[in-house]
Amino acid sequence: MRYQPRPGAALDDIDTPALLLDLDAFEHNLRYMATFFADKPTSLRPHAKTHKCPEIARRQLQAGAIGITCAKLGEAEVMAEAGVQDLLIANEVVGPIKVHRLASLAERANMMVAVDNPANVAALSEACQAKQATLRVLVEVDVGMGRCGIQRSEDALHLAQQVIDAPALVFQGLMGYEGHLVMRPDAEERSSGVRQAMIPLLEAAELLDKHGIATEIVSGGGTGTYDMTGTSAPMTEIQAGSYILMDTTYLRIRPEFHPALSLLTAVVSRPLPERIVTDAGMKVITKEFGWPEPIEPEGLVLQGLSEEHGKLLAQRPDQVDLSIGDRVRMIPSHCCTTMNLHDRLYVTRAGKLVDIWSIAARGRAQ
Amino acid sequence: MRYQPRPGAALDDIDTPALLLDLDAFEHNLRYMATFFADKPTSLRPHAKTHKCPEIARRQLQAGAIGITCAKLGEAEVMAEAGVQDLLIANEVVGPIKVHRLASLAERANMMVAVDNPANVAALSEACQAKQATLRVLVEVDVGMGRCGIQRSEDALHLAQQVIDAPALVFQGLMGYEGHLVMRPDAEERSSGVRQAMIPLLEAAELLDKHGIATEIVSGGGTGTYDMTGTSAPMTEIQAGSYILMDTTYLRIRPEFHPALSLLTAVVSRPLPERIVTDAGMKVITKEFGWPEPIEPEGLVLQGLSEEHGKLLAQRPDQVDLSIGDRVRMIPSHCCTTMNLHDRLYVTRAGKLVDIWSIAARGRAQ
Repeated sequence: MRYQPRPGAALDDIDTPALLLDLDAFEHNLRYMATFFADKPTSLRPHAKTHKCPEIARRQLQAGAIGITCAKLGEAEVMAEAGVQDLLIANEVVGPIKVHRLASLAERANMMVAVDNPANVAALSEACQAKQATLRVLVEVDVGMGRCGIQRSEDALHLAQQVIDAPALVFQGLMGYEGHLVMRPDAEERSSGVRQAMIPLLEAAELLDKHGIATEIVSGGGTGTYDMTGTSAPMTEIQAGSYILMDTTYLRIRPEFHPALSLLTAVVSRPLPERIVTDAGMKVITKEFGWPEPIEPEGLVLQGLSEEHGKLLAQRPDQVDLSIGDRVRMIPSHCCTTMNLHDRLYVTRAGKLVDIWSIAARGRAQ
Repeated sequence: MRYQPRPGAALDDIDTPALLLDLDAFEHNLRYMATFFADKPTSLRPHAKTHKCPEIARRQLQAGAIGITCAKLGEAEVMAEAGVQDLLIANEVVGPIKVHRLASLAERANMMVAVDNPANVAALSEACQAKQATLRVLVEVDVGMGRCGIQRSEDALHLAQQVIDAPALVFQGLMGYEGHLVMRPDAEERSSGVRQAMIPLLEAAELLDKHGIATEIVSGGGTGTYDMTGTSAPMTEIQAGSYILMDTTYLRIRPEFHPALSLLTAVVSRPLPERIVTDAGMKVITKEFGWPEPIEPEGLVLQGLSEEHGKLLAQRPDQVDLSIGDRVRMIPSHCCTTMNLHDRLYVTRAGKLVDIWSIAARGRAQ
């Protein structure tokens, strides 16, 4: 039996460390992004790798998103189980075990997947045919990130033709993720980078068009570029994820969204007036994008995270009224990897617990 | 329904990414450490923060460990549920919610906890008295790590006296963790650091003795220092954790233990001969101690981890025979935080799956 606070509980009744979702900020982010896309030719397909939470996905769909993006097959299985019907796995799904699982999932949900390899296309086709399932396919184009994706337009054409010839697969278009650009601090640099990144997609779409192949969908984009890719040909749908939760990294370049996610921690020790130790270390908040930022109370600087502890410096110890058990709240520097460390999201409004949402796809990396 | 391979399965039948435990290496580490402590005046109380796996804890106890160390109350609840009886939570457990939970746990298991604050001692005593439970207590001493723990011997004396006077608490001794030393590369530097770190413990024990208070237990130590703290007065029990799994960081200074833990990943894309992309990123393997090390096949260098991908460079592409779906195995640089990302440990011997162990305390950070 695990301790579980009830709706209506005060923050002090939530055990720590706990991830808090501020519902006001969350709803602002939801509305802001929905409004942005309402009058654009592109649509929003939010990335669930950020939140891994079916309840958030449902609210994104209710707000007008055309479907949900997943990074992993396991995440897509959880989202389909929760009733999400239109799912893009924005990565290659390879190997016999996963290809079989994806074909099974395509029997139950409207699935779309990225490909960049002919052997994978053949395997997907065979598995889906055996189950009489239909799978929609995007050919991934490397737009400069230097990770997955085809390197030349001719390869996009060959893959598209192979997909079109495969009985159980439906060619839908292209995918290109400008992950090397989404966090560039300078907006003009990001914007000119996006124009560059669109070139291989435009070229591939043009070559496909020359061969009579329609590119219905071009999927990509992130929170750092949604207003650039979201208004650029040939993009048709944007996979932004972090906007819904936000973190200190994206807050620096995307002030139009509000910090909805924070970590509630407790002081476990104050052995010296200036040294405050919390119960939140690397196992509950990540640091690959820099230290999380303590926001409540004021006057604290994070000095380090060990596995299970945060070490804070009180710059003016006499002005920091914190005893053991008192709470410190901080904003993560990377919401996606921090969410992946937690099973529950404590949803709050005006300092009260409203609900607890399951981060059901947490850890579903397979 | 999640895909689950059966015992006897080949590595290729395990979906990826997956944490593998090599049972031969694990048993070597188990025996090596048990043998070391068999003829020492100190005992082994392995730290379960490393593995979070009740099956591993059971085997450590069978091999002679006197009990199990936990970092978090939630971990201790899982271990007690699995039948582990003698548990040290090697941290302060503070705040009314956790104090209540710890008192409940002390009704069911033989619990010991660290303290460094009089208000916390009072709260623990009151909660345990209300439940007629008994809680054993160690006073934590800051031995130079600069985190939790009392700063002066007089404070240890006052806390010990308070514990002795508290009806539901039993004073057992001291705790001091030399976490600032355990990973120092140079053994002589580590060893002289340990001698320094023992001084505040020796002084506190001496002061307690002067006041007629017996220090039965002094707990501390880690994998980097087990043979130093494990042979130093006043230590009585050593909390080493990583030795049982190991990682590249500890392998550099502790070659007597074998790498038991590795991550099995699959190639999802090879868009260029030299560029190999796997399905294992920061959400399944950590990097705060440096990049994980690809060990199988040879000739690969890890260039980076994004959230869901690893990017590998094939230094001589013509000699690296890897297609999509093929497997790459790597050793984590930090076993403790990597384990915390996974729910299952795939136990193998001689290339076959033997069992799947639940990492049941994963994420139990509260």
